[in-house]
Amino acid sequence: MIAYRRPVRFEEVDAARILFFARFFSYAHEAMEHFFAGLQGGYAGLIVGRGIGLPAVHIESDFHAPLRFGDVVTIETTCEKVGTKSAVMRYVFKKDDGTRCAVVRHTVVVSDLATLTSVDMPPDVREAFLAHPSSE
Amino acid sequence: MIAYRRPVRFEEVDAARILFFARFFSYAHEAMEHFFAGLQGGYAGLIVGRGIGLPAVHIESDFHAPLRFGDVVTIETTCEKVGTKSAVMRYVFKKDDGTRCAVVRHTVVVSDLATLTSVDMPPDVREAFLAHPSSE
Amino acid sequence: MIAYRRPVRFEEVDAARILFFARFFSYAHEAMEHFFAGLQGGYAGLIVGRGIGLPAVHIESDFHAPLRFGDVVTIETTCEKVGTKSAVMRYVFKKDDGTRCAVVRHTVVVSDLATLTSVDMPPDVREAFLAHPSSE
Amino acid sequence: MIAYRRPVRFEEVDAARILFFARFFSYAHEAMEHFFAGLQGGYAGLIVGRGIGLPAVHIESDFHAPLRFGDVVTIETTCEKVGTKSAVMRYVFKKDDGTRCAVVRHTVVVSDLATLTSVDMPPDVREAFLAHPSSE
Repeated sequence: MIAYRRPVRFEEVDAARILFFARFFSYAHEAMEHFFAGLQGGYAGLIVGRGIGLPAVHIESDFHAPLRFGDVVTIETTCEKVGTKSAVMRYVFKKDDGTRCAVVRHTVVVSDLATLTSVDMPPDVREAFLAHPSSE
Repeated sequence: MIAYRRPVRFEEVDAARILFFARFFSYAHEAMEHFFAGLQGGYAGLIVGRGIGLPAVHIESDFHAPLRFGDVVTIETTCEKVGTKSAVMRYVFKKDDGTRCAVVRHTVVVSDLATLTSVDMPPDVREAFLAHPSSE
Repeated sequence: MIAYRRPVRFEEVDAARILFFARFFSYAHEAMEHFFAGLQGGYAGLIVGRGIGLPAVHIESDFHAPLRFGDVVTIETTCEKVGTKSAVMRYVFKKDDGTRCAVVRHTVVVSDLATLTSVDMPPDVREAFLAHPSSE
Repeated sequence: MIAYRRPVRFEEVDAARILFFARFFSYAHEAMEHFFAGLQGGYAGLIVGRGIGLPAVHIESDFHAPLRFGDVVTIETTCEKVGTKSAVMRYVFKKDDGTRCAVVRHTVVVSDLATLTSVDMPPDVREAFLAHPSSE
């Protein structure tokens, strides 16, 4: 598990005064960028340097409790499943008091960004996934 | 079905040059605001005037084809299921050439925004849902 | 003058419950995309098709009155000044009751997007600017 | 001076493949939230707890060099001027190689968020401003 921690920002809440639901997916992507920080050149190196990306093909998410401006959230990122060209990532959102706010399951397909066709998963990407399996 | 049409904007693509995946959910919310335009005061009237909102409790989404800057997308919004306090909305994203880019299923719970607890669905909200059932 | 009208959306307000100040510049850019809708292929055609963009080099903005969720704003776009490689655009933000909410002045430099160096303004871009001079 | 450092994220670039210009103002606001981290309860405590905010009334910005996905930017925040109810903040954006990418000047008015009318600056806010004067 790799944890990523960040505050809910001033501009990220909506007119209902809670974190806008689409922002959970932006946060998940930030957590993913952090998850791959150990790759050479990080996630940006993968995208820009190698022209390989991880577009989403499926998302499932449960929202259990709202987040508000001033909250700090920790996102625990793990990998549920690894295939030859795809993987299922799992993000658990928790507040400092332990409240579980959301769980996001994110299926990505390793893709050549020039053509947006699937390619075999590079070994270092696979290794990162395998090193952080979901326990639930 | 209520259709909502909008271009992909300059700032909405990501470093992979396609619409950022979390933006699909922002687009879905825009389509929802449009879906409820017929309420008195529109969706803003519901939120600000009546203090009632529709927070997401569950999301499921399939992404079939990317959207790029310059594309125009039509989002067809329908309702899959209506309960006394919740509903499942469905958004189908299509390009002008007919390509189905994404399908989002969005379960919302009618909530008092002051307390974020569920409340009975107002009759006009229920009517809007019932008037636009999903056909698939 | 070319007018662009849009509602303030649910997710665009901040924790102070008003349109987040940086969003005014996103709105201005939307108005700019609309301003250039008359180019062949629109603004996207300029960016993607011809590889020419209009990066900002200077921004000045006055904020006079807040915008809230539920407000509808009209942005009046004009051109204050046209040079051989640059221009100053002006965006006036008005509510339906006539309240002037903000004025943004936006200096852009016509640039080759591959190299991000300035290039001569294409004739159709110049024409669009000249056709809509600022009157104040 | 208080420095705030953050990467340019995957979703923050635009179709010209550079940080979208309005994002500089979001980054500036993040730097401001960080600038006020020393207040009791931080910036969120000011907004949510005390109902006091710092809406922008004027912005001036020069953009000198683009930022791209993979870049890391440091924003140096200082205060140019403090009045009884307003202040001018200054944000200098620098890349790790020392390139100065942008300078933002941001005039804020201390405001009661319930009424959006100006109020006297609280002593702790004034102190934070005075402790970090601009040197240029």
